[in-house]
Amino acid sequence: MKSVNVGLCGLGTVGKGTFNVMQRNLEDISRRAGKPVRITHVGARRDNPECDLTGVKVSRDIFDVVRDPDIHIVVELIGGYDTAKELVLEAIKNGKHVVTANKAMIAVHGNEIFKAAEAKGVVVTYEAAVAGGIPIIKGIREGLVANDIKWLAGIINGTGNFILTEMREKGRMFEDVLKEAQALGYAEADPTFDVEGIDAAHKLTILASIAFGIPLQFDKVYTEGISKITREDVQYAEELGYRIKHLGFTRKTAEGVELRVHPTLIPEKRLIANVNGVLNAVLVEGDAVGPTMYYGPGAGSEQTASSVIADIVDIAREIDNAGNVPHLGYSSETENLPVLPVNEIETAYYLRITVKDEVGQMAKIAQILSNNNINIEAIIQKEPDGEAAVVPLILLTHNVREKLMDQAIVELEALDSVTRPVVRIRVEQLDG
Amino acid sequence: MKSVNVGLCGLGTVGKGTFNVMQRNLEDISRRAGKPVRITHVGARRDNPECDLTGVKVSRDIFDVVRDPDIHIVVELIGGYDTAKELVLEAIKNGKHVVTANKAMIAVHGNEIFKAAEAKGVVVTYEAAVAGGIPIIKGIREGLVANDIKWLAGIINGTGNFILTEMREKGRMFEDVLKEAQALGYAEADPTFDVEGIDAAHKLTILASIAFGIPLQFDKVYTEGISKITREDVQYAEELGYRIKHLGFTRKTAEGVELRVHPTLIPEKRLIANVNGVLNAVLVEGDAVGPTMYYGPGAGSEQTASSVIADIVDIAREIDNAGNVPHLGYSSETENLPVLPVNEIETAYYLRITVKDEVGQMAKIAQILSNNNINIEAIIQKEPDGEAAVVPLILLTHNVREKLMDQAIVELEALDSVTRPVVRIRVEQLDG
Repeated sequence: MKSVNVGLCGLGTVGKGTFNVMQRNLEDISRRAGKPVRITHVGARRDNPECDLTGVKVSRDIFDVVRDPDIHIVVELIGGYDTAKELVLEAIKNGKHVVTANKAMIAVHGNEIFKAAEAKGVVVTYEAAVAGGIPIIKGIREGLVANDIKWLAGIINGTGNFILTEMREKGRMFEDVLKEAQALGYAEADPTFDVEGIDAAHKLTILASIAFGIPLQFDKVYTEGISKITREDVQYAEELGYRIKHLGFTRKTAEGVELRVHPTLIPEKRLIANVNGVLNAVLVEGDAVGPTMYYGPGAGSEQTASSVIADIVDIAREIDNAGNVPHLGYSSETENLPVLPVNEIETAYYLRITVKDEVGQMAKIAQILSNNNINIEAIIQKEPDGEAAVVPLILLTHNVREKLMDQAIVELEALDSVTRPVVRIRVEQLDG
Repeated sequence: MKSVNVGLCGLGTVGKGTFNVMQRNLEDISRRAGKPVRITHVGARRDNPECDLTGVKVSRDIFDVVRDPDIHIVVELIGGYDTAKELVLEAIKNGKHVVTANKAMIAVHGNEIFKAAEAKGVVVTYEAAVAGGIPIIKGIREGLVANDIKWLAGIINGTGNFILTEMREKGRMFEDVLKEAQALGYAEADPTFDVEGIDAAHKLTILASIAFGIPLQFDKVYTEGISKITREDVQYAEELGYRIKHLGFTRKTAEGVELRVHPTLIPEKRLIANVNGVLNAVLVEGDAVGPTMYYGPGAGSEQTASSVIADIVDIAREIDNAGNVPHLGYSSETENLPVLPVNEIETAYYLRITVKDEVGQMAKIAQILSNNNINIEAIIQKEPDGEAAVVPLILLTHNVREKLMDQAIVELEALDSVTRPVVRIRVEQLDG
């Protein structure tokens, strides 16, 4: 099976992430693609000390990459409008497929670029251009293909969402949080693109086009930033049961399409109102499916690389074969990892122990837990339960292997003072 | 361009939805697929009065559909294990691609079915088998292809989530809510599959296989239902800052794969802890992207049909061409709907009007709003703002066209009693 050669232009934040994830997960990515997929040529003005370029051709002129006859897919990660466009158009002219994370270029020059690609029979993909690591382009163009899409609303700028979240949760002022965001590297020295909504407008332009089948029309997006939002308004909104989010919003009406980016009050009970910090989410309303939402990191090095590589694999799957996605996601034999019996898992536990309200019972229980290497994270002890003179004792434990917990429960239930079976519910933090 | 003929087996809940959405959105679906895609043959023991089968071949024996030489794609929506498997294997033998929503069949017989399909060079797709309308199979198999997936957690049974949500929000008992769920049609007369976790275990089996590249191993899933969860445990969990959800959870460890379905305490600040009612969500942790979450309806007629049709279009795009997804989602010319200027949009507004604390000012403001057809939904009036003898007046309006609001704001700001520019933030309910 012929291998697919990828040429990477740019070794900045996303370029570095793409290079390193491709190297690290090379074997799995190739198994999923159904053929070897490798970055064989990198174009960058300078090396990135965090990338080991051993064995990879390196050019200082990025245009060498799009002229390399051995390259099948060019990945454009240099950003900006003009050079990026020139690079992509030359790649297309040379018959290369293109993957880009460049929202500004797609929003402004996409119609021209796609026309050139279609004329040449190549594809230009841009999953990473909207909402970073969230596969939202795929979700809409493919997953929701059955639907007449009614509207979509996106929190599609992490910097802005971080600022609004801090203002609400901590009562801070806009300027104050912006300075912190700049110190943390979330916001640029010139924060205009983020806080005045231009970045979000680029992304909304793309989302609206794929939702409604209309050309990219960045110049028609109504764009209003968050720099005038005060903490008073954030608080009043909260009193009314709302949160202020910087939304990209597009809706199809009988009269036309609304394309707008502005601060928006949304009811706090909506899931999207609870998307906080630098995270992104896009909520889409389709006539058949109703609401679906896609949530995750909207920026970051490897986070965005995740989408860049998804595009690379999509194209690689199409080259030289039917392009089908393997049934279980992998083309070659699936690994047969053992499935663990449940008593070999490790997790934390919620325990409810019903115990006689007598002196010294807690010490016995604590001893049994300790003997089985079970550490306690939190305890609630309730008042006696009616006339029965028993009390519910609620414990949260740290992680422990289930067979130790099984043993502890046997011992606990053997105590005279424990009057009912112990209730045990597992606990997962789900924090990565 | 040759049209793609689809044979539909089953006209129950999902079959009806698939048929009707395909009819309703036929033109857009074909534009997105790049060729005409039509249901030309339906197999069902009886007609469904909610489907207009005019012009469609109808067979009482569903096996007639898989033997129809004109059919390219067979859609299996009859459910169950044995007949469904027999039907799918015969479809494969006859060289048809297959789309199914049958989680039980895939979880139990999937390895055998996929092997037969690969030997024959056809595909079997099953997006609708997990989490209904949420494109989660696509998200994992394609969108997250770059990632070494660490774990995933899913609320993948809507009935169970409805019951737990009601228990928490209203302090109700399990049996009581189950009866309501049955009356509402969320739960079957025999609710075992839902409340004892078997349905979730089917779905988890599939998710774990595509996440980790392991064979389908339904018989190895540890499965525990929610029927023993008491409202006391729900309340104690809440006191500890947790919510109890019925999770399907799978994790790859150095020792093997954990496959488990059980009630789980998760921190209430996680977004997935706030997925309520019959809705589903799947949270996936990848090494590159970190956490992404996919949210939407896990069941329902047209909701599930949305995923069935996405699979049909995926296959249709692959038949007879390179299989590329069109750049902006549509193969033919994009519609050029007009983009509305912002003063032609309709939305609700939050207004903050800074007004002198004098008698009669409210009446003047109300008059201006009324003159411009602006109705008030809620008002907050605050105490005087320091010594300035001005008060902030906060209003939420009903929907109104923006140009009327622009005019009202001009008039409001012309009042002597309004001492500062009016703050206006748009409001969206995002409720479908």
